[in-house]
Amino acid sequence: MSITINKELASCGGRLIKLSHESISTHTKMDVNIYLPKQFYDDTHSAPIPTLYYLSGLTCSPENASEKAFWQPQADKYGFAVVFPDTSPRGEGVATDPENSWDFGIGAGFYVNATESPYVKHYHMYDYVHKELPVVLNDHFNKASKRVDFTENISITGHSMGGYGALAGFLRNISDNKYKSCSAFAPIVNPSAVLWGEKAFSGYLGSDKSTWLEYDPCELIKKTENIKNSILLIHVGTNDPFLKNQLKPENILEASKGTSWENKIDVKLAVGFDHSYYFISTFVPEHAEFHAKALGLI
Amino acid sequence: MSITINKELASCGGRLIKLSHESISTHTKMDVNIYLPKQFYDDTHSAPIPTLYYLSGLTCSPENASEKAFWQPQADKYGFAVVFPDTSPRGEGVATDPENSWDFGIGAGFYVNATESPYVKHYHMYDYVHKELPVVLNDHFNKASKRVDFTENISITGHSMGGYGALAGFLRNISDNKYKSCSAFAPIVNPSAVLWGEKAFSGYLGSDKSTWLEYDPCELIKKTENIKNSILLIHVGTNDPFLKNQLKPENILEASKGTSWENKIDVKLAVGFDHSYYFISTFVPEHAEFHAKALGLI
Repeated sequence: MSITINKELASCGGRLIKLSHESISTHTKMDVNIYLPKQFYDDTHSAPIPTLYYLSGLTCSPENASEKAFWQPQADKYGFAVVFPDTSPRGEGVATDPENSWDFGIGAGFYVNATESPYVKHYHMYDYVHKELPVVLNDHFNKASKRVDFTENISITGHSMGGYGALAGFLRNISDNKYKSCSAFAPIVNPSAVLWGEKAFSGYLGSDKSTWLEYDPCELIKKTENIKNSILLIHVGTNDPFLKNQLKPENILEASKGTSWENKIDVKLAVGFDHSYYFISTFVPEHAEFHAKALGLI
Repeated sequence: MSITINKELASCGGRLIKLSHESISTHTKMDVNIYLPKQFYDDTHSAPIPTLYYLSGLTCSPENASEKAFWQPQADKYGFAVVFPDTSPRGEGVATDPENSWDFGIGAGFYVNATESPYVKHYHMYDYVHKELPVVLNDHFNKASKRVDFTENISITGHSMGGYGALAGFLRNISDNKYKSCSAFAPIVNPSAVLWGEKAFSGYLGSDKSTWLEYDPCELIKKTENIKNSILLIHVGTNDPFLKNQLKPENILEASKGTSWENKIDVKLAVGFDHSYYFISTFVPEHAEFHAKALGLI
């Protein structure tokens, strides 16, 4: 479980750390970027620094959001770390889409634990993100004293496939109070009902659709009690080319009706915005404030 | 001189416009990105909106800085437009480095008017950036009323090769008061004296080094009167791999000694920062404030 620091560079008031480690979940080397905010480097700052996990969308590596989402000044403002995991296992021997499309396989792990051959060997992104990675980071960065809290006072967000991944991970772990808050940018809220999700779930989980529902936010909403009266913050651009056919934010509002989530899902339509990092970076400040409150920073 | 709008998308409070036009300077189609800040879309805002020109570095297209430098929130904060020109002519028939290296030819126009074959036909980036482009933009965007001032109340900045281009353009046009202010991120301050500049200038301008000096900020400083008592703001990262051999910021301080620029060049060494957009985006807020003052916005 040893970590290799590949690069460490100054960014805003803190440092972006690009690292890799051998994962027991995926049986591959995994790349991760971490932003440690200025508070981490301030010896007078003694309180543990909470962490926001950011799950990226299809085709992304940890680099895209690190460079383009611009979480760093917000992380400095409130004092939280940001973790940018990869979107799938990679490397020699990792099966991918036979047709090499961009919406399945490498770069498109969909944050599930695959059960189907040939993906079952490496595609365990659910366990990787929600179970293994936080512990690996805690072990590495907190050998001496607990400066960054990667496991307890944490929140989660993500974009598109990663927005779905954040919602699913938050809801599946709500009884353990694993994540203090969850938000999403242009998430695939109902993967079982759209082409992206159908392709991914049938490939990774097989034809039995009951297994799909365990990862589908619209199903999880129905069977998960909103025990802490949480709000889910979601932004979607009105010019997002995937809005109508893949994202369908209205489905999660519909699913929440009559549940403890009714009126607790704050879907904000952002007029004129598309699916890009121009959209994400614009609303990152609002999401940062949302999570900072839940993490006790304001 | 007609402009084609290729894409227009919401970003922060304004819009990023990706356009192209046939250039009479380069005899090619040129791509340009423009950020129009939120004030442009506010009908109650009647004052003309000033413009900041951002010249990119080697290998960049207008996309890199648009996505990664994060000028947009600063442009909204103060109310200026940002123009991101390309770094060279491109396309069929445009000569490039016979060895296809990344530091000469396409993506590396060095903001000069080439005099040498085969580059003389297309490589007129100096005229393009400082003369043609502002007029083209003014003609297109200000047909009805002058909402954006692309030609008079303007400032200039840039990164690396573009930082050199900004300094050279500012100094060469100082007697016309063309640019209200100039700043640079990791600029090549003394291109005649470093490998990048020697390669570019010998290729574009030939072996007579007296022609090189007309574009070299360290030479221009010596023969240009600081008529408005301007400050030049420069940031360079201490971990910039090009600091010692290509950037040499100390050379412009040395050149300024005994001139009207002495103590007017504010070279700030940024500890731990490299040459990347992580460096640029970190100091964009400080440069934005600097230019906003010169443009009369604060």
